[in-house]
Amino acid sequence: MSNPNTDPTVSSARLHDPDARAFASDNYSGVHPQILTALAAANEGHQGAYGTDDYTRALGDVVEHHFGPGAVAFPVFNGTGANVTALQSLLPRWGAVVCAQTAHINVDENGAPERVGGMKLLSVPTPDGKLTPELIDREAWGYGDEHRAQPLAVSLTQSTELGTLYTVEELRAITEHAHAKGMRVHADGARLSNAAAALEMPLRAFTRDAGIDVLSLGGTKNGIMFGEAVVVLNPEDAALLDSMKYLRKMNMQLASKMRFISAQLVALYGGDLWLESARHANAMAARLRAGVEQLDAVTLTQPTQANAVFARLPKAAADAVREQYKFYDWDEAAGEVRWMCSFDTTPDDVDAFVDAITHAVSRG
Amino acid sequence: MSNPNTDPTVSSARLHDPDARAFASDNYSGVHPQILTALAAANEGHQGAYGTDDYTRALGDVVEHHFGPGAVAFPVFNGTGANVTALQSLLPRWGAVVCAQTAHINVDENGAPERVGGMKLLSVPTPDGKLTPELIDREAWGYGDEHRAQPLAVSLTQSTELGTLYTVEELRAITEHAHAKGMRVHADGARLSNAAAALEMPLRAFTRDAGIDVLSLGGTKNGIMFGEAVVVLNPEDAALLDSMKYLRKMNMQLASKMRFISAQLVALYGGDLWLESARHANAMAARLRAGVEQLDAVTLTQPTQANAVFARLPKAAADAVREQYKFYDWDEAAGEVRWMCSFDTTPDDVDAFVDAITHAVSRG
Amino acid sequence: MSNPNTDPTVSSARLHDPDARAFASDNYSGVHPQILTALAAANEGHQGAYGTDDYTRALGDVVEHHFGPGAVAFPVFNGTGANVTALQSLLPRWGAVVCAQTAHINVDENGAPERVGGMKLLSVPTPDGKLTPELIDREAWGYGDEHRAQPLAVSLTQSTELGTLYTVEELRAITEHAHAKGMRVHADGARLSNAAAALEMPLRAFTRDAGIDVLSLGGTKNGIMFGEAVVVLNPEDAALLDSMKYLRKMNMQLASKMRFISAQLVALYGGDLWLESARHANAMAARLRAGVEQLDAVTLTQPTQANAVFARLPKAAADAVREQYKFYDWDEAAGEVRWMCSFDTTPDDVDAFVDAITHAVSRG
Amino acid sequence: MSNPNTDPTVSSARLHDPDARAFASDNYSGVHPQILTALAAANEGHQGAYGTDDYTRALGDVVEHHFGPGAVAFPVFNGTGANVTALQSLLPRWGAVVCAQTAHINVDENGAPERVGGMKLLSVPTPDGKLTPELIDREAWGYGDEHRAQPLAVSLTQSTELGTLYTVEELRAITEHAHAKGMRVHADGARLSNAAAALEMPLRAFTRDAGIDVLSLGGTKNGIMFGEAVVVLNPEDAALLDSMKYLRKMNMQLASKMRFISAQLVALYGGDLWLESARHANAMAARLRAGVEQLDAVTLTQPTQANAVFARLPKAAADAVREQYKFYDWDEAAGEVRWMCSFDTTPDDVDAFVDAITHAVSRG
Repeated sequence: MSNPNTDPTVSSARLHDPDARAFASDNYSGVHPQILTALAAANEGHQGAYGTDDYTRALGDVVEHHFGPGAVAFPVFNGTGANVTALQSLLPRWGAVVCAQTAHINVDENGAPERVGGMKLLSVPTPDGKLTPELIDREAWGYGDEHRAQPLAVSLTQSTELGTLYTVEELRAITEHAHAKGMRVHADGARLSNAAAALEMPLRAFTRDAGIDVLSLGGTKNGIMFGEAVVVLNPEDAALLDSMKYLRKMNMQLASKMRFISAQLVALYGGDLWLESARHANAMAARLRAGVEQLDAVTLTQPTQANAVFARLPKAAADAVREQYKFYDWDEAAGEVRWMCSFDTTPDDVDAFVDAITHAVSRG
Repeated sequence: MSNPNTDPTVSSARLHDPDARAFASDNYSGVHPQILTALAAANEGHQGAYGTDDYTRALGDVVEHHFGPGAVAFPVFNGTGANVTALQSLLPRWGAVVCAQTAHINVDENGAPERVGGMKLLSVPTPDGKLTPELIDREAWGYGDEHRAQPLAVSLTQSTELGTLYTVEELRAITEHAHAKGMRVHADGARLSNAAAALEMPLRAFTRDAGIDVLSLGGTKNGIMFGEAVVVLNPEDAALLDSMKYLRKMNMQLASKMRFISAQLVALYGGDLWLESARHANAMAARLRAGVEQLDAVTLTQPTQANAVFARLPKAAADAVREQYKFYDWDEAAGEVRWMCSFDTTPDDVDAFVDAITHAVSRG
Repeated sequence: MSNPNTDPTVSSARLHDPDARAFASDNYSGVHPQILTALAAANEGHQGAYGTDDYTRALGDVVEHHFGPGAVAFPVFNGTGANVTALQSLLPRWGAVVCAQTAHINVDENGAPERVGGMKLLSVPTPDGKLTPELIDREAWGYGDEHRAQPLAVSLTQSTELGTLYTVEELRAITEHAHAKGMRVHADGARLSNAAAALEMPLRAFTRDAGIDVLSLGGTKNGIMFGEAVVVLNPEDAALLDSMKYLRKMNMQLASKMRFISAQLVALYGGDLWLESARHANAMAARLRAGVEQLDAVTLTQPTQANAVFARLPKAAADAVREQYKFYDWDEAAGEVRWMCSFDTTPDDVDAFVDAITHAVSRG
Repeated sequence: MSNPNTDPTVSSARLHDPDARAFASDNYSGVHPQILTALAAANEGHQGAYGTDDYTRALGDVVEHHFGPGAVAFPVFNGTGANVTALQSLLPRWGAVVCAQTAHINVDENGAPERVGGMKLLSVPTPDGKLTPELIDREAWGYGDEHRAQPLAVSLTQSTELGTLYTVEELRAITEHAHAKGMRVHADGARLSNAAAALEMPLRAFTRDAGIDVLSLGGTKNGIMFGEAVVVLNPEDAALLDSMKYLRKMNMQLASKMRFISAQLVALYGGDLWLESARHANAMAARLRAGVEQLDAVTLTQPTQANAVFARLPKAAADAVREQYKFYDWDEAAGEVRWMCSFDTTPDDVDAFVDAITHAVSRG
C-alpha cells in the first residue's frame, strides 16, 4: 500500500461492498441512517465523560418513559457486558444463574459470566429456548447448602436465541415462581424490540410489569453502531444501583465518551425507530419462512416468532446457498441452520434468498 | 416529555451545547469530522461480524505500516479493556506487573487488572510517572518463590499520566533490563500519538524498535468515538496471538460490529490525522503553560511534554476558574490540578482559559 | 462453662461419642490408627516449611513407586483444592472442562472451579456417572471459535460419585479420544483406592498407563485426617510442574507444615494401608447391598462397584432409619438415597444397619 | 526402595531428624504434645462432616469465652485462606483493602487476595509494619468515584510481620478512624497469641473491644498441626455470617473432617496452652535479642515485641551461621535477616545460636 502517512485521503474511503447481503446475523448489518444523524448531532463541544453528559441524562428520561418511574439505565459497550454486569449485580459471590442451555450467556460468551462475573451457570435443556417454572426447578434447589452454588437468579432471553417468544403469562409464571424462591430475574433483551413488535405490546408490559428485575436492553442488533444498556427496573433496589455503578467500571464497560452510546439509544428508543426496525425484521423473517415453507427439502425446526428462521435442509444445498449468502450452522450434525433478518433486510433480499434456496434444494 | 413513541423527531436532536469547553480530559471532546465521515463510509451493506470485515483487514495493513511486518492489531472497546487484555496475554496466572504508582491501570480502573485480569500490580512511587530500571528493581525480585506473585511484566505509559515523556534511550534501558530478567514490556499508549508528536519520531521507533512487546494503541483520547487496539509487536510470539483472540472475547471486549472501530482507527492512523491532532493538542498545552508560567500564584509541577499541564494554585482561584471550565484536581491536598488539551482545543480556548486563571489568581 | 484459661484439662478431652456410626459419607469416619502413629512420628524438631521436608521428599518416592518415574506429587489440603488446581494447570484462561453432570466439581464445590479456577464446566448427563467418547463429544466442539469456551480438558471420577467404576478399556477409549482432540484428561481420584481394590489393579495401570494426565489422589476419604495430592503423571510436561507450584500457592492450598500431610500420605500409600482400607470399605458396601437386595421395598439404582450403595426406598422408611444412622438423600424427589461405607465400617455396623432398614420397610 | 505395597512398616517410620533446630519460621516447628493428644481424643467413631461435629460446637464456646457473646468461628485450613475469606466477607466486589506494604497478604500470598478474593490491595509503606490513621488516609479516599477501587476495609497484623505490636490505643485510633470512614477492620492474627502475651491482655481486649470487626485467629504458628479460624466479632452482622459460610466453601477452605481442626483449636485456646506457648516464644526472642545486642557487627533493626528478631549483620557471617541454622533474609540488599522463635525453641537453642552468631561475626 502507499504510505498512509502521506496519503490521508485513503483513510476515510469506503473499503467494502455496500450491496453485500447476508442472513448470518443481525449484527452483520450496519447502522440505521437516523443513528448516524444522531451521532453527528451529539458531536462537537465538550461534554462530561463517563456518563455525565446531556445524552445520558436524556436516555434516563427515555428509559423511564418506556419502563416507568425509577427505571435506571446503565449504558455499556456490548451485550456480553450487559448480561454479565446485570447478573453480577443480582448475585452474591456464591450465586448461580439458572438459564436455558441455549442461552447466549451459556454458549456464546466464552465463559465470561463465570470468568469475569464469577458466577456459576446452571443450564437446563429446553425444546425451544424457553424456561418454565418446572425447568427452573430442575436446578433451583439446595438453598442453604454451602456445597451448592446458590441458585439466586434466573436469566431468560426475550425473544430467545431460537427465535421464539415468551408470552406475558409465561413470563409472569416464571417471575412469580422465581421470586417466591428468593431468586431475581434477568432478561437478556438483545432482541427485546423484536419481542415487543411480535407481542404488539409496550416494552414495560412484558418486562417490568411481568416481574423482570433487571434487563439487558439491546441496541446493536437493532440498527445501532455499538452500545446496550443494563436497565434496573425496580427503583426500590438502591443497592442494585450502587452495584451497577461500580461493576460496570470494573468490568471494563464504562465508556469514556458515553454520550455517543446514549445518543444512539435515545435515537433508537426516543421515537419509534426501535419498533419500526424490529417490525420490519420480523416481517422479513415471516416472509422468508413463508417462502421456504412449502419446500419439501426444507424442514422448519422452530416457530418463527421474531426475526430468526431455523431450518433443516440438505448439507449440499445449504453449502450451495452459502456461496452467495453467508449464514451459520446451528446444529451441524443435524443439518440445522439459522437465518437471521435485520432492520435493513429488504423484501428483495428475502425473495432472492428464497430463490437461491429453492434452486439449491431442487438440484439436490 | 412528549411521548417518544409518537415523536420520532426528538430522537436525533442535538441536546447539548456544542460550544462548551473544558480542560478536564481529552475524552470530554467529541469526534474529529474525518472520523464521522469514515463511520458513514463504513456503513451500509452486510459485513462479517467480530472482525471478519474489510475495515479490520485494512487496519491490519495500517498497523503493519506503522509497526512493521507481523505486528497484529486486536481492536477493543476501551483503554481499560486494552490494558487488561494486553497484560493478561503476557502473564501466566501467577504473574505480576511492575508499574508506576500513578499508572492508569493502578489508580483509574477500579481494580480491573486484578479483578478481571487476575494479576497483581506491584507499583512503585515515581517523581514524574516514569519507571526506570532501578525503580523496576524495587519490585522485580523473588523469582522462583511461589509465595511471591511473579513479576513477569512491566507496564509503562507513554506519554505518562503526568504528561511526561520517555526518551527512546530511557525506553531501551527499561526493555533491555526487563527482558534480561525474563519480563515482558507493555506500553499503555492511550496518548501514544502525543508522544510521537513530541518526540518527532515514527511510532515504531519508540515502541517496537525500543523493545516494547505489546501496546495499547489509543484512539478515543485522540479524536475518535470509541475504540482502541491491542497491538502485538513481536510476530514470533504465536502464543500471544492465540491468547489475545480468546482473552478479548472472554474479557467482553469483542465488538460485534467491529468494522466501526476499525474504520475509525484506519481513518485516524491510515493518514496523518493521528499526528496532526496530537501535535495540535501538544501545542495547545505548551501555549497554556506559556500563558500561566509567569503567574506568581501558579506553580507548574511537571514538565509539559505532551498535552497535559500540571499546576498548583490557590484553591479559591481554582474553584473560581472551574465555574467556567471543568477540570480535575490531581492532588487535592496539595492544591495540584491537571489541565488537559485535546485535538479540538483552540488557541482562543487556551487564551480565554489563561485569562480566567490570571483573573482568578489576581483576585486571591 | 468454666474459665478455659484456668482449666487446661478441658482442652484435650474427648467430646464426642466414639461409638456413633453413620452411612452418610466416608468423611464422617475418623483416622486410621496407623495414620495417628505416622503423625506422631513426623512430629518434633524443625523441618522446612511449605514442602521442603523429609516426608514430602519421601512422598515423591512413594508416588514414583505407584505411578512410575517422573510422576510428581503436590500435596494440598482437600479434594476441591486438588481438583481445581489440577484442572487449572491443564487449561489456558479460556479453557473449559467436559465432565459428567454428577461430577463433584460440578455439583459439590459451590462453583469453586468457575470462581477460583476461572474455568467453564461443560457437563453432560450420564446414566451412571461415567463419561464416554460419545458423551464427551456432546460438548467437545467449537475449537478455534473464540465465542466458545474451549473444551481442552476432560475430568472423570474414578470410582464415580455414583459408586460405579471405569474399566481400563473405557478409560483408554476416553483418553485416546480426548488426546486426539487436543484435550488433556484429569481424574478425580478421591476414591481411587476403592477403584484399585475393585479393579484388582495397581494404581498406575488405570491412571498413567490408561492415559490420564493429571490426578487428584485422595486421602481423606480413605482414612487420613486431611490432605490429598495432585499427581502430575506426565514427567515431560515441565510447564505443568511449574504451573502447579504457583497455582497451589495462589489457590491457598500450600500447607506450611506440609510434613504432616506428606507423612499421612506416605503412611497410607507407602505400604498396603490404602488397599486394605479400600478393600474393606468395598466389601462392606457389597455386604450392605447383599443385605437389602432381597427387600421388595428397596430398589438398588446403581451397580455397587466400590464403597457406595444407591437405593430407592419409601420416604417414611428412610426417615425412620435416619433417626439411628445419618445418611443423605441423593435425589429427594425420586426417593433415592446414598449409603457410604468406609475403612472403619464393621460387618456388625452393616448388619445392624440392614436390620434397621428391614425393620423400617416392613413397618411401611 | 523396596516395594511399599509389601512393606507397610516403612509407612509410619520417622524419616527426619527430631533434633534439628532452625530460626527460620514458627512453622518449621512441629506440634505441641497436647495437640497430638487432642487429635487422638477426637478420633474414632463417626462425626458429622464439614463442621457439624462436637468439636466445632465446642470451639464455638471457646471462641465466645475469649471474644464475648456472639463471636462466631469459621475454621479454615491456613492463614491465607483465613485472610482472603475474612476480607472478602467484608467487601463488595469493588472493594479495596488498605494495608501495610509489608503485610503478609501483600507480599507472601502470591496475589491470592487479588486473584481468589478479587480485591485490590492499597498498600502503604511503614517504618515498622504498623498502620496509623494518617497512613491509612494516604489510600482511603476517592469514595463514590467508580474509577477507584473503593477502600472499604483495613487489614492490620497483630503482632506484625516485623515483630512489632500495636497498643490498644493505637488499635482504637485506627478502628475509630476507619469506621468513621465507613471502612471495616480486619486483623491478621496469625500471631495474635504472641501479641496477647506481650500486651498481657485477654484476647478480647485488643480485638473486639478495640473495634476489630473480623479476625484471622492463628493456630499453626503457635504449635498446632494445621488450621486457623476466621472469627466474626460483631454478632449483629448477620450478613457477614452468611457470607462466611459460602465464601469458605467456594474458597476451598471447608475441611471435611473439620473435627480435627476444631479439636486442635479447642486444645490450644480452651486452656492456657496458647498463652504459655506464646509467652515462651516471646521470651526466647527476648533472650536472643539480649544475646546479640552487644555485638558490634549486629544491628537490631526493629524492636523485639513478640517472637521475632530483625537484625543486620555482615553477609559472610549470616551465611556462616546459616550452615547450621536455617533462617531467612528479610532485605537481602540491606543485609537484614529475620530470626523467629517458636513454642519449642529452648533456651539452649537460643544460647547455641547466639554462640554461633558471635563466633561468625568475630571471624568476619
